[in-house]
Amino acid sequence: MAGFAAPLRDMEFVFNELAGLGPILSRLGDDYSPELVSTVLAEAGKIAEDVIAPLNHSGDKQGAKIENGTVRVADGWQGAYDTLVEGNWMGLPFPIEHGGMGLPWLVNSAISELWAGANTAFALSTILTQGATHAIISCGSDAQKATYLPKMVSGEWAGTMVLTEAGAGSDLAAIRTKAVKTGDHYLISGQKIFITYGDHEMTPNIIHMVLARTPDAPPGVKGISLFIVPKFLVNEDGSLGRRNDLRAVSLEHKLGIHASPTAVMSFGDNEGAIGYLVGEEGRGLEFMFIMMNNARLNVGLQGVALAERAYQQARGYARDRVQGKALGKAERGPIIDHPDVRRLLFTMKARIEAMRALAYIEAAALDHAEHGTDEQKRQGQLIADFLNPIVKGWCTESGIEVASAGVQVHGGMGFIEETGAAQHYRDVRITAIYEGTTAIQANDLINRKLGRDKGAVARTVLDEVKAQATKLKGSSQPELALIGRALEEAHMKAVEAVDWTLAAGTEDSRLPAAGSVPLLMLLGTVLGGHQMGRAAEIAAAKLKEGAGDKDFYTAKLATAQHYALHVLPEALSYARTVTEGSKTVMSLDPALF
Amino acid sequence: MAGFAAPLRDMEFVFNELAGLGPILSRLGDDYSPELVSTVLAEAGKIAEDVIAPLNHSGDKQGAKIENGTVRVADGWQGAYDTLVEGNWMGLPFPIEHGGMGLPWLVNSAISELWAGANTAFALSTILTQGATHAIISCGSDAQKATYLPKMVSGEWAGTMVLTEAGAGSDLAAIRTKAVKTGDHYLISGQKIFITYGDHEMTPNIIHMVLARTPDAPPGVKGISLFIVPKFLVNEDGSLGRRNDLRAVSLEHKLGIHASPTAVMSFGDNEGAIGYLVGEEGRGLEFMFIMMNNARLNVGLQGVALAERAYQQARGYARDRVQGKALGKAERGPIIDHPDVRRLLFTMKARIEAMRALAYIEAAALDHAEHGTDEQKRQGQLIADFLNPIVKGWCTESGIEVASAGVQVHGGMGFIEETGAAQHYRDVRITAIYEGTTAIQANDLINRKLGRDKGAVARTVLDEVKAQATKLKGSSQPELALIGRALEEAHMKAVEAVDWTLAAGTEDSRLPAAGSVPLLMLLGTVLGGHQMGRAAEIAAAKLKEGAGDKDFYTAKLATAQHYALHVLPEALSYARTVTEGSKTVMSLDPALF
Repeated sequence: MAGFAAPLRDMEFVFNELAGLGPILSRLGDDYSPELVSTVLAEAGKIAEDVIAPLNHSGDKQGAKIENGTVRVADGWQGAYDTLVEGNWMGLPFPIEHGGMGLPWLVNSAISELWAGANTAFALSTILTQGATHAIISCGSDAQKATYLPKMVSGEWAGTMVLTEAGAGSDLAAIRTKAVKTGDHYLISGQKIFITYGDHEMTPNIIHMVLARTPDAPPGVKGISLFIVPKFLVNEDGSLGRRNDLRAVSLEHKLGIHASPTAVMSFGDNEGAIGYLVGEEGRGLEFMFIMMNNARLNVGLQGVALAERAYQQARGYARDRVQGKALGKAERGPIIDHPDVRRLLFTMKARIEAMRALAYIEAAALDHAEHGTDEQKRQGQLIADFLNPIVKGWCTESGIEVASAGVQVHGGMGFIEETGAAQHYRDVRITAIYEGTTAIQANDLINRKLGRDKGAVARTVLDEVKAQATKLKGSSQPELALIGRALEEAHMKAVEAVDWTLAAGTEDSRLPAAGSVPLLMLLGTVLGGHQMGRAAEIAAAKLKEGAGDKDFYTAKLATAQHYALHVLPEALSYARTVTEGSKTVMSLDPALF
Repeated sequence: MAGFAAPLRDMEFVFNELAGLGPILSRLGDDYSPELVSTVLAEAGKIAEDVIAPLNHSGDKQGAKIENGTVRVADGWQGAYDTLVEGNWMGLPFPIEHGGMGLPWLVNSAISELWAGANTAFALSTILTQGATHAIISCGSDAQKATYLPKMVSGEWAGTMVLTEAGAGSDLAAIRTKAVKTGDHYLISGQKIFITYGDHEMTPNIIHMVLARTPDAPPGVKGISLFIVPKFLVNEDGSLGRRNDLRAVSLEHKLGIHASPTAVMSFGDNEGAIGYLVGEEGRGLEFMFIMMNNARLNVGLQGVALAERAYQQARGYARDRVQGKALGKAERGPIIDHPDVRRLLFTMKARIEAMRALAYIEAAALDHAEHGTDEQKRQGQLIADFLNPIVKGWCTESGIEVASAGVQVHGGMGFIEETGAAQHYRDVRITAIYEGTTAIQANDLINRKLGRDKGAVARTVLDEVKAQATKLKGSSQPELALIGRALEEAHMKAVEAVDWTLAAGTEDSRLPAAGSVPLLMLLGTVLGGHQMGRAAEIAAAKLKEGAGDKDFYTAKLATAQHYALHVLPEALSYARTVTEGSKTVMSLDPALF
């Protein structure tokens, strides 16, 4: 099984040459420099490679277990978690005033990708803690911040997101968990499912962020509130008090991420679990989305990360495995010389680089939204909001495709669990489901992101694609001109599909919904292509300058070209499916399926 | 977990309205009628539903085990296997003179799909036995036929295909297992891997068909011979003699088909395993392909079968699971009313029906090759040979896609093993790998199938697509005209890609190889679309006649239309990738990956 090598060079390329790390850092003050970020990234790379990645396969085999109500994580988990707490890695993107490092989301995205690439089942412990922490920073009272943040920012206490119920999955309006006000707190009761790291003993306390309904609340999403429900109550002096009335009932037996404990949680079996309201009643869904958007970017990054891991695994195998004589070779050689193996690997590589670039661009937009001028903040938030469902949906669906290609490169060995390729294929499958399925992302895209501003942000973004395509198309360098032509065509398809989506809703609201997932995939493909087009232009210029790092830029230019001819053409079929195919979707009576 | 319902209606539709069962049966004599076939199919459907399917999930959980060198199959396996032997189901396609039923391959394909849809891990025991039997019928001596066929045709003895070695997977030329002539037999020694049902105790004997190399044989594939190596030697009176010198060393721990024992087999650890040469020395690969082509069709059918099973599982869940209000509905309802769930299910259904039709058309061509006039035999064999890699490659890759969509329909529950959707996703992954990966199929397609006759058969087949498209396009019924237009465009793309492939090899033999898998997928998509176009025409006519079965034909017409707009457009991107993308594949030095 191949180890994991942190893809630092490509990360730094996206940081510095595509996503504008410099300007983002300069707004944070003199303490932050690209050199500092390089050091941080390299250090994280080492931890990912040496501490976290070696636990990936063993964790998968061992899995998380529940024994007499106590959740046991896999061997090595505690040590790896402690390493992250000691380095304050969980606090990396949070403000210094709360004990964080105050680094940009852009940098945190790369770190998040590293943890997930090393070991997604492990990395989930950090994502959920960060999501819960982010929610308290954004929406908690000063007292709540004082009580929880010092321990949560560092990861000394873990956090969870407790949303789903058996009858309330994609439809959170159906939540039935109750919250009854009693003095200064609420008593929470109900059963929740699919709670990632719902319980464990890696940290002395776990802070659950729970969605529940108050007794006289209106029906639907407006009746839902968000509560902080600690596993152990916290005394005024900050010490831990009694155990709260909540417990993990069981763990799910899952297709993948075996070492991530996915718990059924019961709140209030006895006297009721004590919970503290965040903000006001009825704002639960709004606050939940603050956690959720953060988590969605992180899940999109898991798609990138597992694709990268699967690629490295397949690349290693393809270089080592000798089988047959490749065409044009006189001797038996490694299978990487066989054209179809090369095609699989190259398309994997091309997808990954486009996915990474687009995901980091979203993170950079979040940084603009937090630290720029008012106009930068406004624009940054709009771009981040627009990209959020696309990054989540497209990077995870593409991640599944890449991991499947990784299995294929291995031939029969890919189907054998010891090889490691199969685990990535199993692990990545959840990414297109949790934190909102691809259909939920697509729904968000067409309704909240396209519908509300009638496509204004989409057009701004697509205009940039067009400008890039035009520039490349006019290049005297044939590789760039080729990319430009492919991008121009794909851009046109994206515009057609967006226009169709905006218009179709007036005829029948189900039409744009029926085409929404292909639309999301189309936009991901084209926006990823935009970043690859930008990368190609930069790489060509660097090569012309002879500025060094020739191998990296040669590969980047070739990879962008491969993307233009092997991934961008998917825009053609997605667009056709959106603009013409949507009308067949609801044409058959469900009884006739 | 949804049960399995044998898709008899669609099978009979393909039999009678697309694949010409009637004329095939009429050549077999008066004993065979479509009514008999219906009875046989319905009986098989019952066994699949009631006997085999209920073991699918339990078999997955329990798996096959090896204990002290003895392979233990899962609970219930023995009874299910005995049921098939008692009904002579394994003998269904074999000549009556050898104890078979003498039914067409077309019918056997449906039966094979039923067993695989019910339980692929179990069904593999029948496929390998049929493959070995087929090889002895085709290539064995009279004495070998007399010794082995009576028990193998019935399945009383099982058969295996023993090809792969650790150093010889896709490249069988690298086989090192030795066969040394000693009197009237050979002594076989060597280690083989990935031997499906390599050992078990469901049958008193297992007949291994083993590829091995004789001492003075030329290097490469010409030095390989095929041997019959029985687990227990057979005495002259047909009774079982001593145990041969071969054993299962271990079983693989696999991603899926857990209950199918995949063995590492050792031959000749002691005195050497006794083996009997099939035909002459040096013809091993040729004979192996007789087994292999048969097995490849069966594996293509596994793709269809697991897609069907995944579809039924997802459809059942989508009808039962209530979540949210669908657009245009006043009340909460089943998720099948949500447009994207409907889209996923409809596309699954459309793919499956196209896959099934194309696979059965290959089987019908095999029947023509066996029983027609000389010209029919010649044409039948050419068509079957041409379709073989396409059916294997496209139906399995599409099966993976369908099973993944099945997981997606379930949302979070799809990731939980108890639901059952995940098993199909795991099980189906091997189908694109074993009996030759998709790349191996694509290699066969461009070299043996397209290259040797310079595309003559391909053009014949594509001309029929064009004629069908033209007819549909001219229809006054808009649904048919729409399908015709989509098919015409896809046909044009297929022709372009085939022409490009034939021409490109003269420039660089690696170019067509680099585009071969997209070409295979393109041809599968278009040829599946051809069958859906034929089906649509028939369905429209039946509906116009008011000939009954309105629901079925309504669904068929709508499904063909959905295929035209949701699957056929993939031809656009595949064609682009073949004709323009192939040149980038080998453009980057492997060291720069």
